[in-house]
Amino acid sequence: MSDTPDSAVHPVRAYVEQHRAAFLDDLAAWLRIPSVSAQPEHAADVRRSAEWLAETLGDTGFPVAEVWETAGDGGPAVFAEWPSGDPDAPVVLVYGHHDVQPAVREDGWDTDPFAPVVRGNRLYARGAADDKGQVFFHTLGVRAHLAATGRTAPAVHLKLLVEGEEESGSAHFRALVEEHRERLAAGVVIVSDTGMWSETTPTVCTGMRGVADCEIELTGPDQDIHSGAFGGAVPNPATAAARLVAALHDEQERVTVPGFYDDVAELTDAERALIAELPFDEATWLRTARSYAASGEAGYSTLERVWARPTAEVNGIGGGYQGPGGKTIVPASARLKLSFRLVAGQDPDKIETAVREWVAGQVPPGIRHEIVFGAPTRPCLTPLDHPALRSVVRSMSAAFDGAKIRFTREGGSGPAADLQDVLAAPVLFLGISVPSDGWHAPNEKVELDLLLKGAEAAAHLWSDLPDALRRPADQTYPTQ
Amino acid sequence: MSDTPDSAVHPVRAYVEQHRAAFLDDLAAWLRIPSVSAQPEHAADVRRSAEWLAETLGDTGFPVAEVWETAGDGGPAVFAEWPSGDPDAPVVLVYGHHDVQPAVREDGWDTDPFAPVVRGNRLYARGAADDKGQVFFHTLGVRAHLAATGRTAPAVHLKLLVEGEEESGSAHFRALVEEHRERLAAGVVIVSDTGMWSETTPTVCTGMRGVADCEIELTGPDQDIHSGAFGGAVPNPATAAARLVAALHDEQERVTVPGFYDDVAELTDAERALIAELPFDEATWLRTARSYAASGEAGYSTLERVWARPTAEVNGIGGGYQGPGGKTIVPASARLKLSFRLVAGQDPDKIETAVREWVAGQVPPGIRHEIVFGAPTRPCLTPLDHPALRSVVRSMSAAFDGAKIRFTREGGSGPAADLQDVLAAPVLFLGISVPSDGWHAPNEKVELDLLLKGAEAAAHLWSDLPDALRRPADQTYPTQ
Repeated sequence: MSDTPDSAVHPVRAYVEQHRAAFLDDLAAWLRIPSVSAQPEHAADVRRSAEWLAETLGDTGFPVAEVWETAGDGGPAVFAEWPSGDPDAPVVLVYGHHDVQPAVREDGWDTDPFAPVVRGNRLYARGAADDKGQVFFHTLGVRAHLAATGRTAPAVHLKLLVEGEEESGSAHFRALVEEHRERLAAGVVIVSDTGMWSETTPTVCTGMRGVADCEIELTGPDQDIHSGAFGGAVPNPATAAARLVAALHDEQERVTVPGFYDDVAELTDAERALIAELPFDEATWLRTARSYAASGEAGYSTLERVWARPTAEVNGIGGGYQGPGGKTIVPASARLKLSFRLVAGQDPDKIETAVREWVAGQVPPGIRHEIVFGAPTRPCLTPLDHPALRSVVRSMSAAFDGAKIRFTREGGSGPAADLQDVLAAPVLFLGISVPSDGWHAPNEKVELDLLLKGAEAAAHLWSDLPDALRRPADQTYPTQ
Repeated sequence: MSDTPDSAVHPVRAYVEQHRAAFLDDLAAWLRIPSVSAQPEHAADVRRSAEWLAETLGDTGFPVAEVWETAGDGGPAVFAEWPSGDPDAPVVLVYGHHDVQPAVREDGWDTDPFAPVVRGNRLYARGAADDKGQVFFHTLGVRAHLAATGRTAPAVHLKLLVEGEEESGSAHFRALVEEHRERLAAGVVIVSDTGMWSETTPTVCTGMRGVADCEIELTGPDQDIHSGAFGGAVPNPATAAARLVAALHDEQERVTVPGFYDDVAELTDAERALIAELPFDEATWLRTARSYAASGEAGYSTLERVWARPTAEVNGIGGGYQGPGGKTIVPASARLKLSFRLVAGQDPDKIETAVREWVAGQVPPGIRHEIVFGAPTRPCLTPLDHPALRSVVRSMSAAFDGAKIRFTREGGSGPAADLQDVLAAPVLFLGISVPSDGWHAPNEKVELDLLLKGAEAAAHLWSDLPDALRRPADQTYPTQ
């Protein structure tokens, strides 16, 4: 990858600047399609969005651009492919989604969420950042890559998979990936559906937590019974549920399920130092979390807790009488919804087994229990010394005028892990959204400067990656 | 009180036998009035029931028999009074209720719940045992008392208060008692709204537990927040609620609230021995409780736990997502409904203060809480050496052909405690219902033999009580 001295505009940037207006016009046309996958009345819009994208990718130059149906009533996905001229080129699969969260003007939007508008240096519309904007910068990026390198085909074998049901739970995504496993095969997956620390702190995400969730039903008496006649002399399933929850953590807020931490990829001192470099402000973070205290596993900072440590969380609890006033009963049953965030190294199946055994050992005599697990999502983590990650970092730095690129992780879990699983390829993240973009909120926007930097970073990445992957991995952390 | 040798029928029994048919006809007429206080459409029936009873008590001979209005839309009560000829006679207030639980044939009744029918030696109808039958035996009892003693007025100054909203919560009962405090004034209160151990084990109830209940709202984030983005790093109010519940008891299942047991009237060895005399069978009790294990405070038997020990029970718990499937949130709030059964010696106000302080000390930083207590019900307990209790025991024994009378308590709580409080009089229990009577259930019935024994016991009691109360109390337990 070439240096970008201040004295000259890099050809990538020159191309991007030159095509900025047309690029934004096209993106605006896409944003006008209300592809809300969670609302059946928008099913036709989701399809229209997929068809629009497939056609546009074809116009961009992708020789293959197809709409893929998903199982059930899931919104269709788009697949596109642009083979490299070089048979030894690495195969890269870019992931994003073209469906969006619901939005109506009355939610608090200043303008129609599906009538994109530029105010200042921002483009406002549902999907501007999550995720149409971040998918679409790849169309500009690949063209800039070709223009800057003089190639007629990308230096990587480029594939795109743009999902149509991410905002409604990706229920059929894994099946889709499994069905098309061979056509999707890639050496590297690039997910463009995340963000950066902030406008002034460019970062690359290196991983997401996985999640295993379960529902536990605890049953005591055959029906609600009188707490006067029987209270204090029979086990109460609501008490049993509460005791299970209380026993889930020790006084250090560590999860007590035996073996829970056995396979956890512990943070190295170097990784902790990188996290500590970020300009984290607890008060600001708490405002974002709409919470009134930070707490959690002893010995870890807030960012370490949400990014790199596994958790056990109560998502819901219910039992007995919940209406107005009181009702003096020993309830017949209680229910718990628990979810366990998992980090690299942890195997959801092993965690499920451990939780089942632990629960069975906790439930007291006279209480029966049933536990049902949902489909898990595995964690994914890019090793900091992975050559592809070093390439992403160099590309981001080039787009950000040589800025130091720092590292984040995502505490959440996503379908990216399915790609990692099924394709057995490392997942990397290339995203330029910032916390103020308002994902899922009214007045969602994207910063236009950052959007174009996304295109630049992609253009640099397709140039940088082939060489990077040919070099042997080293064991040091990336330098820039 | 006279002996009742086998060789002669006691005049009380003779009178009761002689008037049995008319008594049952009258009771059946009353049972035909569907005085369901919980259902507004039966408000006129509750009033008709009160008017019928007042008129019938007048016919029985009570010089005073009035319908008393209650505050709000509470069903009217009936008050009756029959002064003794003797100005030194003890004043006795009998308590019962004339409203009944809802009942429709479709609930599983073999016959119309409001068309009383005698099958074998049982009278089936809603209210047969709870509580019209047990109120009504007093009409026959007082007449038998007069007939057997040749008196024209009872040997006690007899008052009756028959409530009309017990089955709908007695919301205005305390206000009613306070309003009529002077007319209700009594030296002894006799509650006829409980039962005996069984058909073959006649017993007298000596107390009821009190109850204090509260609702606790725990609030964390301002709204449900994403458990991926924030889970493990902010306090979860559902977890806090569960930990409160878990912390409520120690490993001995003793309530941990400081001071909770300070004022508890501990069971004496003699009382424990009396409880142990009862033919308790755990398997049978568990079937009644519809539960699968007995458990509770270490060192106490099941009967001791439900009758004589205070408890802390979760009546309801709720927080976060309780719908189908999962939702990966840290919930904004959680709610707990707790009730504390109280035993003699415990002061609900002191318990409320102790619970409030304890909860405030348990809630972790970042969680706000609000706690609201309902109106408490005090416990009541008749000392086993109380002369009036000895008199009740002798009267029951006489009615049951000299049988040994054992002692029970009620684990539940009732408006009787309001009478004890406001009138500052000891509460005693005279009831003949048995567990198989099916209170609140389909096919409620009363055993006719026991119903008449109730009348006999009342007749004996009015004769026995004046002398008993004149004798000094002794410190031994009653012998028969």
